[in-house]
Amino acid sequence: MKINVLTLFPDMFTPLTTSMLGRGLEDGKWELNLVNFRDFTTDFHHHVDDTPYGGGAGMVLQIMPIKKALDSLEDQGKVIITAPQGRTFNQERAQSWSQEENLTFICGHYEGFDQRIYDLADEVVSIGDYVLTGGELPTMSMVDATVRLVPGILGNAASPVDESFARGLLEYPQYTRPEDFAGMKVPQVLLSGNHQKIAQWRHKEALRVTYLQRPDLLASYELTKEEELMLAEIKEEEQA
Amino acid sequence: MKINVLTLFPDMFTPLTTSMLGRGLEDGKWELNLVNFRDFTTDFHHHVDDTPYGGGAGMVLQIMPIKKALDSLEDQGKVIITAPQGRTFNQERAQSWSQEENLTFICGHYEGFDQRIYDLADEVVSIGDYVLTGGELPTMSMVDATVRLVPGILGNAASPVDESFARGLLEYPQYTRPEDFAGMKVPQVLLSGNHQKIAQWRHKEALRVTYLQRPDLLASYELTKEEELMLAEIKEEEQA
Repeated sequence: MKINVLTLFPDMFTPLTTSMLGRGLEDGKWELNLVNFRDFTTDFHHHVDDTPYGGGAGMVLQIMPIKKALDSLEDQGKVIITAPQGRTFNQERAQSWSQEENLTFICGHYEGFDQRIYDLADEVVSIGDYVLTGGELPTMSMVDATVRLVPGILGNAASPVDESFARGLLEYPQYTRPEDFAGMKVPQVLLSGNHQKIAQWRHKEALRVTYLQRPDLLASYELTKEEELMLAEIKEEEQA
Repeated sequence: MKINVLTLFPDMFTPLTTSMLGRGLEDGKWELNLVNFRDFTTDFHHHVDDTPYGGGAGMVLQIMPIKKALDSLEDQGKVIITAPQGRTFNQERAQSWSQEENLTFICGHYEGFDQRIYDLADEVVSIGDYVLTGGELPTMSMVDATVRLVPGILGNAASPVDESFARGLLEYPQYTRPEDFAGMKVPQVLLSGNHQKIAQWRHKEALRVTYLQRPDLLASYELTKEEELMLAEIKEEEQA
């Protein structure tokens, strides 16, 4: 998989060249192509923005340098812009993008995009209901969520199948040493060595944390017979 | 405002020391204190994680080094952990955090936290319904969204009052030079010089983009009389 990023701040992208994603780059499991679209300006001062038509504070990114930078790529693939009015990014979208051979992200900064820049994109995606100084951090989050699903990136770490959202539930609680930390103890069942009981406990606790913290996720989740019984128990326990 | 971040990857945080946030750091408008909690391990190999009780793939972050790193801070303020089961981060939370004098973020990586680590936090916050390789990127997004609201950070850029979510609506479309790009033209009203008409057009288009893209935002938005009329017009126009 090759990912192109159009940005005014290529130096910001160290998080993607560190740790597991960085090792994936070194091992050739994916490629990252950072393109500074300021290099595609033709004026003496290399301006990428201008004042908004109709007046108002702030500056607006121009379409020309971004269009030229896009046209310079031989392997654009799907072109993605992050913006508040986009469809909300989620794990399902990360799964789908991880199947692509090429993706291209366009990062704004401070200012908004000229509205016509959105017409250059295949998808406009929002990372959540908050405003950032630029598109670099949301783009890095989307790239991270996507690339970690590419085979070979996670290595021996836990399989993505077991984690939050992958099956529609949040993840069950985890514990490691020490057994007792200032009176906070590890649940007995996890020390029992009884694998079937442990699996049941984890399944039920994944349901519980989803029911308590994110009931909206449960609404679109199809419960098995076993899970229906578990959930009835959980509701009784939580009322007590 | 001073922000502490407990992380295993302090080198990842270049996005916060670049551009506007970087200038804010230089100008003393905010402080960033990156703490590697691996420095608080006491074993020879400086392990911060261990296998999960009850078995399973992956590793789990231990409570001890994180607790010691936290205790070493004189000015913790609110302690925040990012995790999928948390309450979803949004602009309202960024607003509220931007009033704090101190904030401390704890970043996990790859693995989950020992469940007891959550008891060290004042808030568990989710950045969205997707899984990342670590807590660094979501923490940077939250810090960015929060710090840019601190007075003096945005400088002469657009005031945060005008932008998406600040008033419950998405932002209106912006345009800058050229007037005509390959046949894609700037709306005439923006070239009219009539400030009242421009303000009305922008107000209506902010309503339109919110109605079309994020009707869920409108549901919790209190429309003025004028906006009710605008919305009726928009609905008619969109049906035509």
